[in-house]
Amino acid sequence: MRAYDIIEKKKNGEDLTQEEIEFFVNGYLQEDIKDYQMSAFLMAVCLKGMTNQECSFLTSSMLNSGERIDLSRIEGIKVDKHSTGGVGDKTTIILAPLVACFGVKVAKMSGRALGHTGGTVDKLESIDGINLAIEKEKFFKIVNEIGCCVISQTSNLVPADKKIYALRDVTATVESIPLIASSIMSKKLASGSDCILLDVKVGDGAFMKNTKDAIDLSRLMVEIGDSFKKKVVSIITDMNQPLGNAIGNFLEVWEACEVLKGRGPKDLRNISIYLAAHMLNLAEKGSFEKCEKMAKEAIDSGRAFEKLQEMISALGGDISVLLEDEYPNKSKIVYEYLSDFEGYISEMQADKLGKAAMILGAGRQSKEEYIDPYAGIILNKKVGDEIKKGELLAMLYSSSVNRCKEGENILKNAIKISNVKPKAEPLIKAKITNQGVEKYSLL
Amino acid sequence: MRAYDIIEKKKNGEDLTQEEIEFFVNGYLQEDIKDYQMSAFLMAVCLKGMTNQECSFLTSSMLNSGERIDLSRIEGIKVDKHSTGGVGDKTTIILAPLVACFGVKVAKMSGRALGHTGGTVDKLESIDGINLAIEKEKFFKIVNEIGCCVISQTSNLVPADKKIYALRDVTATVESIPLIASSIMSKKLASGSDCILLDVKVGDGAFMKNTKDAIDLSRLMVEIGDSFKKKVVSIITDMNQPLGNAIGNFLEVWEACEVLKGRGPKDLRNISIYLAAHMLNLAEKGSFEKCEKMAKEAIDSGRAFEKLQEMISALGGDISVLLEDEYPNKSKIVYEYLSDFEGYISEMQADKLGKAAMILGAGRQSKEEYIDPYAGIILNKKVGDEIKKGELLAMLYSSSVNRCKEGENILKNAIKISNVKPKAEPLIKAKITNQGVEKYSLL
Repeated sequence: MRAYDIIEKKKNGEDLTQEEIEFFVNGYLQEDIKDYQMSAFLMAVCLKGMTNQECSFLTSSMLNSGERIDLSRIEGIKVDKHSTGGVGDKTTIILAPLVACFGVKVAKMSGRALGHTGGTVDKLESIDGINLAIEKEKFFKIVNEIGCCVISQTSNLVPADKKIYALRDVTATVESIPLIASSIMSKKLASGSDCILLDVKVGDGAFMKNTKDAIDLSRLMVEIGDSFKKKVVSIITDMNQPLGNAIGNFLEVWEACEVLKGRGPKDLRNISIYLAAHMLNLAEKGSFEKCEKMAKEAIDSGRAFEKLQEMISALGGDISVLLEDEYPNKSKIVYEYLSDFEGYISEMQADKLGKAAMILGAGRQSKEEYIDPYAGIILNKKVGDEIKKGELLAMLYSSSVNRCKEGENILKNAIKISNVKPKAEPLIKAKITNQGVEKYSLL
Repeated sequence: MRAYDIIEKKKNGEDLTQEEIEFFVNGYLQEDIKDYQMSAFLMAVCLKGMTNQECSFLTSSMLNSGERIDLSRIEGIKVDKHSTGGVGDKTTIILAPLVACFGVKVAKMSGRALGHTGGTVDKLESIDGINLAIEKEKFFKIVNEIGCCVISQTSNLVPADKKIYALRDVTATVESIPLIASSIMSKKLASGSDCILLDVKVGDGAFMKNTKDAIDLSRLMVEIGDSFKKKVVSIITDMNQPLGNAIGNFLEVWEACEVLKGRGPKDLRNISIYLAAHMLNLAEKGSFEKCEKMAKEAIDSGRAFEKLQEMISALGGDISVLLEDEYPNKSKIVYEYLSDFEGYISEMQADKLGKAAMILGAGRQSKEEYIDPYAGIILNKKVGDEIKKGELLAMLYSSSVNRCKEGENILKNAIKISNVKPKAEPLIKAKITNQGVEKYSLL
């Protein structure tokens, strides 16, 4: 077998065998196959596609390249959850304790921020004292005792994906449904849970720009899950504007706590209850409707918030600040961005808002950069809201006025105004299971 | 400007600007753009194509990457000739002295063998004492005094093409009409002649497998030539079987001399006269018909053979051996390959015959390998000929019996027999100028 022939076969749009895909992935890890051959191959995959079966082979080759977490020492059904990445998406912080209230185990490894989208690890690390880089033994113990635990991904989880992803990132081969599906599913399968809930974001601020692509990606991931005998459900949700009002690490942790306190933005509460109900349903805790009621009850009773506090304490985090009544601001600069126009907000481009938060200090523009845990944005208005001249549009949190001014400029370009109230965009667009696709327009 | 954005633009099938293509080629030469980015880009070009204008930009960027030969010190019209590579193609050795008889100057830099196809430099170097790696001054002097000179390509001619070609060769991105056209034309333009005759081979033994692709490639090269104000004519010729009967370096030099002596295989004589007439016509020596007569006369009078001898002598080569009446064999083993079947020969796959000659010692399987100048094949039969059991099919020349046996096995697979006489394949299929395409079925 030769790397050249495999690249050529894919270039000609032919299907690759399991042996060919394994040869290519293993050869790349062992450096027999070079970066320049892998990148030519990846571009051919981007442009010629892969069958579902080829994707299963690719997933399996990547999965076998490293460690697979054995969660058998954790009792009960283990449910994992993955979001393809959005701006203001803090649902993991809400969902993990919420479903854990009902004995469903969440043993979750999370990633860091990618581009303009935040990572759950960066968010939780904004809590004083917390340590997410813990040993497996302690991780299993916390999940067994409390029901949920979020830690940072170990470096030996799917090394082939890590190496390939780094290459895709510099060769314009990120946007490919087969490559995205194999990358996500190899990591999820390596993490060892019984069922997986996928939240595929669609819109300006997401990898998937339209619902058709999001459905194709979901279908493929559900089918890959099937071929590995894992129950997978994928929910397609809107990412044309940020989720909730907060963007930025500690600001998002605070907003997640707000929802668990029975408050917070409606969109974030609704989507959290919806996703939690699906996780409970996957874990066979009853019908979807019953699970939805259970999720609401766990929020309203305060049980879920208590569970979150237990998890954070177990990880060494200081929970006192989360118990305050008002937002305990720690930013040097709090900058009010007042509207200089009036009308209805028709657009709030999520990717630009993510970039603005990054400029304020909430994300890294390069690997070495320091993250300001308290930097970010709180939106006072969302799409569909009416705004008057001089009214508060958003609060910007940063360590410097210059960064705030720069952020404000980006916000100005990201927000569009209309004379008429725009039609509301549904928050939940579709559900994909191995039974098929259901389309919704749920707000 | 970022390499990433340029790769992505081409991936999306968009047209690149001159600035973008220059940035990419120059960045690659300066190693700011990495191999893995270039190979992803090349694969995107293979699959998404390039407009004719983009090809001109690419040609120009590569052309500007190195030295351009200034032929202004050579008097008269300089005509270059390029073949896209075939098996048994020794026409350059015939054409250069032939057109030089009429004052048309041929200052030609040639390459070495590529895969199963031979290179003119390797062929001429089979002559004792010859040195093709001469200084420019001497090169110009020989062309001025004798009218033609073939030397080996200098390393600083189009370094960008050299670097990109080496990468294409290991990433399955060789077969792309825009990339082939830019590679050929950048080298031809750097060589400095006034007019260029292209011989685009089509068939099993060539890069172009069908006439449509060969026409597309030709059209593109003629148009690139136009954009650089150079007269370019492209002739599409058959490469489903080898050209002439000889394959192998000295065997081919001998066969070229045979044609110049007024003998030799008919196909080789006809194509040589046809191509020479086009070169003379490009150099404004009269109508095509007149030029055809001139070419025949130069062969029949022996003038062209004298010119070849002058050129070889000027390059230090020993011409005495070329003057013999019978083939002056120098191979240790001469192996008769007798037919074990009978009927009409319907196929002689040129690529396999090229590989057989390589195995006999005529080519390199790796860069380091030694070439046996006398190794090769003389075909006694060609497509359309009848053959009886036990009749001589080919003579194999080598230094070892084992190599002959291996070669014979390849030949067996390359030759197909039919009960009925096959329809003759035209040798000359089309001519492409900036006036359009003329299709032929000339034998």
